[in-house]
Amino acid sequence: MSTTAGNGHPPPRPHFGDRLAAAVADRESQVVLGIDPDPARLWPNAVERSSVARAHLATTLSEAENAAGGVREASDAPARAGVVSRLEAAAAVLAHCLALIDAAAPACVAVKPQLACFERLGAPGWLALEHVCAHAREQGLLVLADGKRGDVPVTAAAYAQALVGGVPSPFGLVAGLGADAFTANPLLGLDALAPLVQAARAHAAGPFVLVRTSNPGAADVLDLELATGERLWEHLAAQVAGLGRTGQAGLADVGAVTGATEPRHLARLRELMPATPFLLPGIGAQGGDVAAIAPAFAPGRAGGLVTASRSIANAHESTDQAPPAAARAEAERLREQAWNLA
Amino acid sequence: MSTTAGNGHPPPRPHFGDRLAAAVADRESQVVLGIDPDPARLWPNAVERSSVARAHLATTLSEAENAAGGVREASDAPARAGVVSRLEAAAAVLAHCLALIDAAAPACVAVKPQLACFERLGAPGWLALEHVCAHAREQGLLVLADGKRGDVPVTAAAYAQALVGGVPSPFGLVAGLGADAFTANPLLGLDALAPLVQAARAHAAGPFVLVRTSNPGAADVLDLELATGERLWEHLAAQVAGLGRTGQAGLADVGAVTGATEPRHLARLRELMPATPFLLPGIGAQGGDVAAIAPAFAPGRAGGLVTASRSIANAHESTDQAPPAAARAEAERLREQAWNLA
Repeated sequence: MSTTAGNGHPPPRPHFGDRLAAAVADRESQVVLGIDPDPARLWPNAVERSSVARAHLATTLSEAENAAGGVREASDAPARAGVVSRLEAAAAVLAHCLALIDAAAPACVAVKPQLACFERLGAPGWLALEHVCAHAREQGLLVLADGKRGDVPVTAAAYAQALVGGVPSPFGLVAGLGADAFTANPLLGLDALAPLVQAARAHAAGPFVLVRTSNPGAADVLDLELATGERLWEHLAAQVAGLGRTGQAGLADVGAVTGATEPRHLARLRELMPATPFLLPGIGAQGGDVAAIAPAFAPGRAGGLVTASRSIANAHESTDQAPPAAARAEAERLREQAWNLA
Repeated sequence: MSTTAGNGHPPPRPHFGDRLAAAVADRESQVVLGIDPDPARLWPNAVERSSVARAHLATTLSEAENAAGGVREASDAPARAGVVSRLEAAAAVLAHCLALIDAAAPACVAVKPQLACFERLGAPGWLALEHVCAHAREQGLLVLADGKRGDVPVTAAAYAQALVGGVPSPFGLVAGLGADAFTANPLLGLDALAPLVQAARAHAAGPFVLVRTSNPGAADVLDLELATGERLWEHLAAQVAGLGRTGQAGLADVGAVTGATEPRHLARLRELMPATPFLLPGIGAQGGDVAAIAPAFAPGRAGGLVTASRSIANAHESTDQAPPAAARAEAERLREQAWNLA
């Protein structure tokens, strides 16, 4: 067959675990740059950057708003108060995110935009998100869309189209964000995870399923003891392990969010999910300690992705460096620390 | 004090439970119109409607896309393939949703846009969502944003800003969707629900927390037996009851999503959450039966909101009526059935 490799075997299908392992090796980094922009805490220079383009963005999006009002054919269009402010805010957020990516990219393997931070700016915020993703890809970074989506199967399939696929329409296929990975919530059960896992696999992307988060309140539900004696997070971990398929690099194509603020859990999580890539939030602003997460790296360096957001973006607040230099230094410090552990 | 009522007591603060009870009484309906637009299954007349305005929307959003590309200052802008198709798709989806609302509104108390269905159309989809919400409000309907969001506290606060509040920016407050209610996922614990509950309460809006969903897979996690002998959904139900404050109409200001495909659960859910408004998906396309949900109405008619999406939007497929007439008839049939039960 023409599709077989020289050795007679079919060429391997692209696999998220293999892509992830290759990216980590290539960039010599396990650092995932969290992008959680707060419009009230943007880098000053970033806010001032690209003012002409920002004004253009504001004008054209404003026209689009009016056009959408025309579609509604409403005689009393809703108050447009705040329309300009959100366009300006979205443009400033975009400029900030691009500067943050440019500063930290050399030390990172991926970006993790926090969808909530873009959604709160409405349609212009979603447009900014799309451009953040495109810019990160241009810098050679993977994109991990952090939305923690989860819903009944028919809706989960729509989220999958938004994140990694596309939706057929009378006007052609409408592509979604095109993320390389995304976070997912497992509360609704396996049939609700299935459309996300299937769509991710079809695009060689990776879902990272919440197993144990890093907030104190995670004890309220995820730490509940089941009748079997397991904790709920142990049950979820076993489910996640069952969903993944292990690739040639020894990593599964379904990951897990495993909060690093409970390092005593990590050995158990690794036992339950031997090949699963772990996304480790909780470093930096959330109080985690990078040295405590070594068990995550058992299946290789790409087995533990170290996420940091505010500790990088706000690094300048505790140094006398400018924001980009401070961000780059902090990302590089984290990169080196994790790389030497693994 | 000038803020006291004639009887010397301060006037009651607006309360979601009271707002909901008043809306149900005023409209004589407990029907929530689910808006889950599938671009491949839009009403034909809706797709053709407002073509001039749609073209305008497409043109201006296209310009906005280019402007955003300018903000990125990327010499190699990503391929614009698909940009036009998604603009057209979002405009057609918007026209479809407006026609659906106009048809079914007289029989409904609220709309429930499914955020996933708009997100998969990107920024134009989010713009369409905003106009769907505005149009529903103009028809006197409450807006229940169905996104099932849940995240660690700092991110939950950002979701709250997107749904019911606003975010401060250097350019002024940026308002979010302004929803009257929204769905929320409780997996991450009480500290993660708190920002959603607090923000909702500040805006007299209502969070509906997932307790028992209607998909078969809900058995995988929500039905797990805990060491205490409870099911997980019973534990979540008790948490939700504890979060709500009961208003003058006898309804709490924190609701619950309680799948009607398991009617045997409803009496137990009502026992655990005596004053909680229930959102009952699973009628119609998901196979529920409206007669089995009577226990939901124990605290009054507004104690049980009956959601239907595809059974209304696709009602014409099993009749010889045009889509709007079939949708209106199906919504009215459901309204009357529920009203006579409660």
